[in-house]
Amino acid sequence: MSTDPRAGEAAAYVESGILEELVSMRASIDNIDATLVYLLAERFKATQRVGVLKARHQLPAADPSREKNQIARLKRLADDAQLDPEFAEKFLNFIIEEVIRHHEAISASRGATTEEDGAEVGAEATAETENR
Amino acid sequence: MSTDPRAGEAAAYVESGILEELVSMRASIDNIDATLVYLLAERFKATQRVGVLKARHQLPAADPSREKNQIARLKRLADDAQLDPEFAEKFLNFIIEEVIRHHEAISASRGATTEEDGAEVGAEATAETENR
Repeated sequence: MSTDPRAGEAAAYVESGILEELVSMRASIDNIDATLVYLLAERFKATQRVGVLKARHQLPAADPSREKNQIARLKRLADDAQLDPEFAEKFLNFIIEEVIRHHEAISASRGATTEEDGAEVGAEATAETENR
Repeated sequence: MSTDPRAGEAAAYVESGILEELVSMRASIDNIDATLVYLLAERFKATQRVGVLKARHQLPAADPSREKNQIARLKRLADDAQLDPEFAEKFLNFIIEEVIRHHEAISASRGATTEEDGAEVGAEATAETENR
């Protein structure tokens, strides 16, 4: 009987061969999830860097043309990866929302207000706040 | 002046050195996004495989103990990666929702109903539907 925590509750009622297979599959999912977490952290660092660059050179936060290209490209890649293209767009929007949420929290705590949209915007606005 | 589509609208008003730097940063973001898309596709394939295994051996779809461990681990990894741990949990829930959404669409189109929860569940339920 496996003592791997990945066995979960299945350890109580699954025969050992099948449990081993399940634990092995879950270990792959866990590896993928770890990669996703570190990659997402890196993405937020990258948009933060863009934000600093834009703030330093007084560039506008939003770039609708860039964002349109990003969405179209992600949908093409998703199609190639056999991932639902609509999900890819939803995923990008989910990340953008998070960036904006972070920024709003910072703005609120500093009593600043800014307008925003776009995948790079939260970080940019943060950078603006930090450069004020 | 850059003709890279990553220049976006900035191409019209940014001096070429800064534009190059911006385009280079955006190329990194695009590489990260492509990796995210292909990795997410692989994750959905992995949960699909778990679903097939569970359906084949009549294992229950949900495993709350496994899910609890997944969330706790992702939060630890997020902390290490300097990513907001609450965001890591939200991200896992976002993926779970998508898996469930896919399943519901399949169930609806086949007139089947099943109860579900958990990170592996949508795929499992799909597998159950396919094995019926």
